[in-house]
Amino acid sequence: MADLRDILARVQSGELSTDEAAVQLQGYEDLGHSRVDHHRAARNGAPEVIFGQGKTPQQMVEIMKSLSARGANVLATRVQDNAIEPILAAFPNATHHALSRLITLQHKAPEPAATKIAVVCAGTSDLPVAEEARITCEFYGNPTLSICDAGVAGLHRLLNSLEEIRACRVVIVVAGMEGALPSVVGGQVSAPVIAVPTSVGYGASFGGVAALLGMLNSCASGVSVVNIDNGFGAGFLANRINRL
Amino acid sequence: MADLRDILARVQSGELSTDEAAVQLQGYEDLGHSRVDHHRAARNGAPEVIFGQGKTPQQMVEIMKSLSARGANVLATRVQDNAIEPILAAFPNATHHALSRLITLQHKAPEPAATKIAVVCAGTSDLPVAEEARITCEFYGNPTLSICDAGVAGLHRLLNSLEEIRACRVVIVVAGMEGALPSVVGGQVSAPVIAVPTSVGYGASFGGVAALLGMLNSCASGVSVVNIDNGFGAGFLANRINRL
Amino acid sequence: MADLRDILARVQSGELSTDEAAVQLQGYEDLGHSRVDHHRAARNGAPEVIFGQGKTPQQMVEIMKSLSARGANVLATRVQDNAIEPILAAFPNATHHALSRLITLQHKAPEPAATKIAVVCAGTSDLPVAEEARITCEFYGNPTLSICDAGVAGLHRLLNSLEEIRACRVVIVVAGMEGALPSVVGGQVSAPVIAVPTSVGYGASFGGVAALLGMLNSCASGVSVVNIDNGFGAGFLANRINRL
Amino acid sequence: MADLRDILARVQSGELSTDEAAVQLQGYEDLGHSRVDHHRAARNGAPEVIFGQGKTPQQMVEIMKSLSARGANVLATRVQDNAIEPILAAFPNATHHALSRLITLQHKAPEPAATKIAVVCAGTSDLPVAEEARITCEFYGNPTLSICDAGVAGLHRLLNSLEEIRACRVVIVVAGMEGALPSVVGGQVSAPVIAVPTSVGYGASFGGVAALLGMLNSCASGVSVVNIDNGFGAGFLANRINRL
Amino acid sequence: MADLRDILARVQSGELSTDEAAVQLQGYEDLGHSRVDHHRAARNGAPEVIFGQGKTPQQMVEIMKSLSARGANVLATRVQDNAIEPILAAFPNATHHALSRLITLQHKAPEPAATKIAVVCAGTSDLPVAEEARITCEFYGNPTLSICDAGVAGLHRLLNSLEEIRACRVVIVVAGMEGALPSVVGGQVSAPVIAVPTSVGYGASFGGVAALLGMLNSCASGVSVVNIDNGFGAGFLANRINRL
Amino acid sequence: MADLRDILARVQSGELSTDEAAVQLQGYEDLGHSRVDHHRAARNGAPEVIFGQGKTPQQMVEIMKSLSARGANVLATRVQDNAIEPILAAFPNATHHALSRLITLQHKAPEPAATKIAVVCAGTSDLPVAEEARITCEFYGNPTLSICDAGVAGLHRLLNSLEEIRACRVVIVVAGMEGALPSVVGGQVSAPVIAVPTSVGYGASFGGVAALLGMLNSCASGVSVVNIDNGFGAGFLANRINRL
Amino acid sequence: MADLRDILARVQSGELSTDEAAVQLQGYEDLGHSRVDHHRAARNGAPEVIFGQGKTPQQMVEIMKSLSARGANVLATRVQDNAIEPILAAFPNATHHALSRLITLQHKAPEPAATKIAVVCAGTSDLPVAEEARITCEFYGNPTLSICDAGVAGLHRLLNSLEEIRACRVVIVVAGMEGALPSVVGGQVSAPVIAVPTSVGYGASFGGVAALLGMLNSCASGVSVVNIDNGFGAGFLANRINRL
Amino acid sequence: MADLRDILARVQSGELSTDEAAVQLQGYEDLGHSRVDHHRAARNGAPEVIFGQGKTPQQMVEIMKSLSARGANVLATRVQDNAIEPILAAFPNATHHALSRLITLQHKAPEPAATKIAVVCAGTSDLPVAEEARITCEFYGNPTLSICDAGVAGLHRLLNSLEEIRACRVVIVVAGMEGALPSVVGGQVSAPVIAVPTSVGYGASFGGVAALLGMLNSCASGVSVVNIDNGFGAGFLANRINRL
Repeated sequence: MADLRDILARVQSGELSTDEAAVQLQGYEDLGHSRVDHHRAARNGAPEVIFGQGKTPQQMVEIMKSLSARGANVLATRVQDNAIEPILAAFPNATHHALSRLITLQHKAPEPAATKIAVVCAGTSDLPVAEEARITCEFYGNPTLSICDAGVAGLHRLLNSLEEIRACRVVIVVAGMEGALPSVVGGQVSAPVIAVPTSVGYGASFGGVAALLGMLNSCASGVSVVNIDNGFGAGFLANRINRL
Repeated sequence: MADLRDILARVQSGELSTDEAAVQLQGYEDLGHSRVDHHRAARNGAPEVIFGQGKTPQQMVEIMKSLSARGANVLATRVQDNAIEPILAAFPNATHHALSRLITLQHKAPEPAATKIAVVCAGTSDLPVAEEARITCEFYGNPTLSICDAGVAGLHRLLNSLEEIRACRVVIVVAGMEGALPSVVGGQVSAPVIAVPTSVGYGASFGGVAALLGMLNSCASGVSVVNIDNGFGAGFLANRINRL
Repeated sequence: MADLRDILARVQSGELSTDEAAVQLQGYEDLGHSRVDHHRAARNGAPEVIFGQGKTPQQMVEIMKSLSARGANVLATRVQDNAIEPILAAFPNATHHALSRLITLQHKAPEPAATKIAVVCAGTSDLPVAEEARITCEFYGNPTLSICDAGVAGLHRLLNSLEEIRACRVVIVVAGMEGALPSVVGGQVSAPVIAVPTSVGYGASFGGVAALLGMLNSCASGVSVVNIDNGFGAGFLANRINRL
Repeated sequence: MADLRDILARVQSGELSTDEAAVQLQGYEDLGHSRVDHHRAARNGAPEVIFGQGKTPQQMVEIMKSLSARGANVLATRVQDNAIEPILAAFPNATHHALSRLITLQHKAPEPAATKIAVVCAGTSDLPVAEEARITCEFYGNPTLSICDAGVAGLHRLLNSLEEIRACRVVIVVAGMEGALPSVVGGQVSAPVIAVPTSVGYGASFGGVAALLGMLNSCASGVSVVNIDNGFGAGFLANRINRL
Repeated sequence: MADLRDILARVQSGELSTDEAAVQLQGYEDLGHSRVDHHRAARNGAPEVIFGQGKTPQQMVEIMKSLSARGANVLATRVQDNAIEPILAAFPNATHHALSRLITLQHKAPEPAATKIAVVCAGTSDLPVAEEARITCEFYGNPTLSICDAGVAGLHRLLNSLEEIRACRVVIVVAGMEGALPSVVGGQVSAPVIAVPTSVGYGASFGGVAALLGMLNSCASGVSVVNIDNGFGAGFLANRINRL
Repeated sequence: MADLRDILARVQSGELSTDEAAVQLQGYEDLGHSRVDHHRAARNGAPEVIFGQGKTPQQMVEIMKSLSARGANVLATRVQDNAIEPILAAFPNATHHALSRLITLQHKAPEPAATKIAVVCAGTSDLPVAEEARITCEFYGNPTLSICDAGVAGLHRLLNSLEEIRACRVVIVVAGMEGALPSVVGGQVSAPVIAVPTSVGYGASFGGVAALLGMLNSCASGVSVVNIDNGFGAGFLANRINRL
Repeated sequence: MADLRDILARVQSGELSTDEAAVQLQGYEDLGHSRVDHHRAARNGAPEVIFGQGKTPQQMVEIMKSLSARGANVLATRVQDNAIEPILAAFPNATHHALSRLITLQHKAPEPAATKIAVVCAGTSDLPVAEEARITCEFYGNPTLSICDAGVAGLHRLLNSLEEIRACRVVIVVAGMEGALPSVVGGQVSAPVIAVPTSVGYGASFGGVAALLGMLNSCASGVSVVNIDNGFGAGFLANRINRL
Repeated sequence: MADLRDILARVQSGELSTDEAAVQLQGYEDLGHSRVDHHRAARNGAPEVIFGQGKTPQQMVEIMKSLSARGANVLATRVQDNAIEPILAAFPNATHHALSRLITLQHKAPEPAATKIAVVCAGTSDLPVAEEARITCEFYGNPTLSICDAGVAGLHRLLNSLEEIRACRVVIVVAGMEGALPSVVGGQVSAPVIAVPTSVGYGASFGGVAALLGMLNSCASGVSVVNIDNGFGAGFLANRINRL
């Protein structure tokens, strides 16, 4: 995907090291523990995002360096507690979002989108996941509308905001427990609905399984589902759809 | 629970056979394959109901005879196809309800209840279970309100009937797929809500598990749940509550 | 549900702020993180109850303030340890119930109910859930009968209390492990039985699943089920039924 | 959503029956067994779709009549065998699609979309679900690209068609067994990917659960998931996105 | 386990064929499809029992011949329909027990046991499994006590038979649905209780899983469990214990 | 079960308090949090055993006092860490078994059994559960044979001890991971085999589910199963069988 | 993988059609419903195998023609009943193996392997899966050793054949129910063991899940597992290993 | 397996103690808590490996001493934190591998293998399991090729290393989340592929179940699976295959 002749010319002129040229040609940098995918933006429209869970702080920092060195904006999800300090020390411009466990690092402002994404969440306890979705949307340049605590036990809280929601081009709905909100919203809008089950609940919620199953079986059409607590995935997809 | 002296007096007078006296004293008749519980009405407020699944036609008929012989109204659920003819032959006054697989046999009219039970169901495909609930309610003398196909994908279908539903003393809500309807109804009424998950759906509905979990995790208070497809259980309980 | 003309008149007279009038008209106060439902008592017969799990202490306090400001009695469930102190500091009249993790705050005494609710629990280890149910019943003004450790391994412990239980209008049965107690109680009473499975057990109890399935499959009629460890839900529903 | 004054004027002029006016005002027709939602197109951008499973042939025909009478194009999914003949007899212009179990009835041609939807399926055995998705897309006026049997065991079969797929605005990926295809496709395109797990497989595929879980856990971003075998849902959503 | 010298002497004398001597020495006869275990009675106290499920009629007959040729009484479980006729044709003295799907063939009467085994079952629909247990017990020479339909919804049906049950040395309890009966019985007797969950039920009984879990989590001590519907296993074990 | 006249005579003579007489007549002492079952030994052959999990230290001590006051030997299982010190302080003669989390308190020596119980365990990591079984057996007076680490990956370790095991009257087999040992042992002995699955393992052992399922599906006859990690239950049942 | 210049030369000379050249260059033939992978033998060492489940008879025949036209030996698994006749009509040299549901068609004899593969199965009912494995091994030219009905309930049946098994280079072990055999075999041999769980069993075998979990948790090293009932997969892998 | 006469001769000559002779003859040393299998190398080609989970530090040290005393190289897996120091103190030459939780102790160098094993892992977070596999391979003397972070979301990272991987004789593929990598690799190589699912992921990954199911249902042939996170098992089997 890189322009072969251009790379070679820059190597010849000494503008580009052979190491970097190799990275650009093979499309990734091999750090030993990670193969950082530098062709992803070209293929997928956005650079690689770092999954923080299970990675050491040093691995996190090295991957962020590899991305930053090539000018990519960096988004890290599920950042573990022990990695926050090392990352902020290495990247003073990075921002840690405590509730959503995200770290963002913007080297250049994202291209602003013209249309909005709604992030509707069922209960206050679902906020961490909803925030993960909202911040992801905004990281990619999308304006958002946030509606929190609009669960189906008090429909007027949702219906009161329906016109605002209908004005958005994509709707993310975040809910735990029985996960009924995407069905209700899905029946009221014509935008694509991305449903995010959360692990909020207890007993027979089974860590979000009840909400997940509810959303997969939605009687409303136009609803698709991402993994339990995957606010990032919903935000990423919403950006992709909103950019069409 | 039977009056001991009265029974003995009737035995002495020849009015009562010793066999029947034994049944009344021990509280059940032992048919070998079944111990028909003749004290249940005294304890539970309603005679024993026959669970038709897994019983032979002959067993069904014998149990119905045991109940009928003592004047009890008979309700049989999940009646298997091979038992219908033998039962109707033995009890010409019995009624077979094909959709709900119930058989009813009324020897005396039930005492009419003063207040109504609502049976609200989410989709047309849930009708067999909703009918099982409705007929059970009526078998015990309760007037009912039936609302069918009021699923959450088109809220106005439910909201339009809300006043009627609120006029009922107990509300049964029947739903398959994601089972969201009890939460929505539960948020709108002050009557007890009995939720009945159905096996309607496919794939990740897992034979009604999705709906069951959704209902158990309802964010609306005042909702309790019975087994998947257990329309009878909901109707029985609704009658008990409605009679308070 | 609020009386529109009355609200407007009070705004005109200066008796009511426009902010508060907006809350009363739209039926909820939007705190950003929460939309506190102020129409719930009108719709459901009881004010909104706060689900404590996953909420920050500050969110808890703000929601309690919103409810208290409008005179509603406050019940918070599953209150997390870090929220207890802040809540008690902000509301000196609130009571923390350690075993059941409830916080209650009564601004006015509830209307007393005339009939009793029985709370029967199978084992000593089930007490926290039983207490959650009992305190909820009493929070709403219901007298209760508590029977603890009446599990089926020693039937006489239950049978000895049967007359007392039969004198109650609603029966809550709390059990972990195999969850057999609701079936046995259900076979002995004519009141509605609300079964609460608990997560008490180990191994193949799967955190309460064994008890939950047992209760859903109860061979006794008149039994319905709430979520695992959901003592509050049982108490709330029992109050609703007891008030009929 | 209907224009109130216009409806009333047409009633006054005798142009509209009072029955039909009622349907238009309340937004649905109540057939007893079904409340056919005639506001759905206004709210959701497409008329109600009929879920064929669990409905009697007569119910199917009556719902189709209710929709057809108001000019809506009709799509019925999971049409049961016993309903095909009655439907085709009542609607000679309807088309039955045997492999996908759909029935379509077009009263007016759908507005053609300018951009394509790709339907990529992993194996020949997944075709019925892929066809359900493809026909749904075309029912709503979208041109499609069909790629069949491009499973990951022979990557060149997919890579060879990558340029064609990248030219589409939305990509539906249908796969059973391990359900790996959406991840691989998702890593190669920048369009939204809708993943459809199928029940193709045996043993530990658990009727599509393996594929469903695989897709929910996709390491590729931009992928969302619908229910097992829900080709219709994918096609419906793809149309919605393609129309943005 | 066979007496080596005795076998060799009988081979030498021509009393025993070399083929049969080989079977006796290696402890099994190899039929190609089956290695019939002729040492099992010596090791386990009872000859090999034939698991009928998944075997062809011809395989069944050949295994029965191998066992019969050495004088062993034959018990076949879960006999498939297509095997009944061929077996009865080959072994006119065999008995087919339709309800329990057993075939028995007694070449010599079993040694009678002095003490009884109780087989208590919860509902009429559990009879096939209870019969499998009872016939197995009797096949091995144990007298039995059968109590049917003594489920916990009507305790007096059980309590009335308690003295008879207490007179037995081993108690088998068969129950489907919530499987509560073994706990109740286990709390009333001092004999070992073998619990057999059955697949009787529907919905959340999950083919007997609810009953199985209930029994595994029994709060009564002295209860152990066999596989769902495994009446044979319970009967076999009961015989083993009764013979101690 | 208590001798009524004798109790009354002792009350009359002042030998027995009316409180204690009430306990003996109703068969349990009601401590509020617990109904200690003092008829259990009469019904079940052994006094009530205390399930330590989920009980407060004070509850534990009070229950132990109630049992000790009537001379019963006390066995407490799954004793939580915070209860050990209070119990040992209150009962200096009690013994805490750290590995098995049992506390035993013997007021009188149990009647010694004449025959042995074998406790065979598959791996060193299964020892805590095996010890729970062994100590339970010995608490009730049974001599035991302990064989540890005889898993099927090295059969000679088991076969070498087979004669010793065959000399026992009951065999307990404890195993985690795939739980194959009970099948192998069951094929070699004629004693009843009680299988105890343990939660030893990782990944697809699912906390002992793999072992549990393996044991329930044992191809060897004469094997029954108790709950995961339920060493106590196995020991209790083994004692009951060994006493026959 | 095809030799480009050679293909082009043969096109130029007219020896090769342009259609066939395209197939060879892109590595697959596109039949519309299937993309038959003609590079698989080059990549994987064996031509594509046809998964029969879910394919129409016509699709089966066309795929077999595509493979046969290029000289590949054909193996079809899980061939559905309705496809047998059409396939045998189109390919008179094909062989249908009824028990294992395989169809084989050999255009050229496979290269014979020098070493043997053992196929050991636990019970007679596991034979269909064992046969699928054995025939697959032989289809690829491997000599096999078949041991049937060597389950762990009678160890001598296995131990007697141990020397023969140890003489094989790869060992396939097929077992249902508790699936213990691979652990026992794995502890006795030094060859790689491929474990195949079968769906033989009932109740808590859950269609082979018990055996699958048992095998995944094997305490014996050197054991790996394939899908439930996947005899083909085991045979394919065994051939691959035996060829090393 | 030990040479009987040789052992006896050495006992006679005083070269061998009778204790050690007993160990060698019976094939294991009985430490009370463990029966250390000293015939395993003879049977299985490698000495017993110590499963560290659930063992006390002292047990660990004693088992290592028993193995070391007979010259066996020692590999301990899943070593718990509290055991590390005691082991290193007792065996100064032992090496602790922190990431993979292994301890190795080599008394003699393993025989080097001539061919390589590839260890390919999907993501950086899977490294601990991949390292467990790689170190196991090297412990047994196999050279390895490590490829890390070659997940399917960026195929070029894998394809770029394909030639290196194809040069290996066995391929281990380690992946969490959807576990798709083994299918993709399996479609590109002709070596046996051992798939290792990891517990990396969240939500519907269910601790590795999603990856496990994906791998079991792989559409690529030649793939077998070990337990979740069982890097050791994969390495052990790979060595066995590589040694053929």
